[in-house]
Amino acid sequence: MATVQKVPATVNGVNVDGLFSTIDAVKATPAIANFKFRVHNQWEGASQNRSTVGSFYGAGQELSRTRPFVLVADEPAVLLGHDLAANPVEYLLHALASCLTTSMVYHAAARGIQIQEIESSLEGDIDLHGFLDLDRNVRKGYQGIRVTFKIKADGSDERIQEIAQLGTRYSPVFDSLTKGVPVSVTAERL
Amino acid sequence: MATVQKVPATVNGVNVDGLFSTIDAVKATPAIANFKFRVHNQWEGASQNRSTVGSFYGAGQELSRTRPFVLVADEPAVLLGHDLAANPVEYLLHALASCLTTSMVYHAAARGIQIQEIESSLEGDIDLHGFLDLDRNVRKGYQGIRVTFKIKADGSDERIQEIAQLGTRYSPVFDSLTKGVPVSVTAERL
Repeated sequence: MATVQKVPATVNGVNVDGLFSTIDAVKATPAIANFKFRVHNQWEGASQNRSTVGSFYGAGQELSRTRPFVLVADEPAVLLGHDLAANPVEYLLHALASCLTTSMVYHAAARGIQIQEIESSLEGDIDLHGFLDLDRNVRKGYQGIRVTFKIKADGSDERIQEIAQLGTRYSPVFDSLTKGVPVSVTAERL
Repeated sequence: MATVQKVPATVNGVNVDGLFSTIDAVKATPAIANFKFRVHNQWEGASQNRSTVGSFYGAGQELSRTRPFVLVADEPAVLLGHDLAANPVEYLLHALASCLTTSMVYHAAARGIQIQEIESSLEGDIDLHGFLDLDRNVRKGYQGIRVTFKIKADGSDERIQEIAQLGTRYSPVFDSLTKGVPVSVTAERL
């Protein structure tokens, strides 16, 4: 007798059965929704440092990767670095781009909306008068960030806008960056 | 006759002469302080996408890298990904760690404060009730981020705190994340 194995429903490459199972699991056990993400960073001299991304807490347990991910930061020569890697404010743009994209892909999948392609261009403005302490009225960080998505999907132009709005409505990085996050910083002697 | 070549003053690996030259140049020509940083992101299916970091605008000109930096994002299995790379909210922590570190290193260098070592551990809390749209009172993004620095430098314990405060006072990512940034998102059909 042939056994019938259920193939998980997949939309946009996302396991939609898994997504709805996660939602059901969180409804049944709210505490499993608490996640703690972490990095450990080490200065390597001058403008270089590297973060190691390994374990995190989620679904009620400590979880780790089979191997850590290493993220290197540097600055370009005009900002007195050696240009060996993207700089911190570029990593921030990557975090935003990747989070908006994944958020729209997942939430579109949950709604059965198929997407063929997504690309985005991000640009953010920084006035160094802030960082260099030359003008107290100029902020140190980004004054504004512009994100332009190009999306290939079936349906009307309204559908394209609907997909993009799933990104801004659900993205954790978009929410963190536009609304702000309390950050506590402490220091001790090594 | 021997020629005497001036060696640039370096503190914490940072070319301090270059730093003060930059400050003088910005004072003389304020417009060169305007920087535009960019990434271009491409969805690769499911939870994977990659950003390319290449050109940026600064010091009054378009500047590019000799080769682009590629940053890949994925999600761990518990978040329905293939765990091939750090996820977007981990990239956000790396952006914060690297920017705080570089900011304290540069501003300490400008003050002649020598630092031997810096490391930091970051942890941020996310409650998936937000992303999963199960509770409108729970935010999608980080509820809070804790940063713990360990710093090796000569001097008193007050000196250690002073160095850490240079990070929070000047870091563009810390400023962006704690105060929030206006982000405009537009979408068009590909």
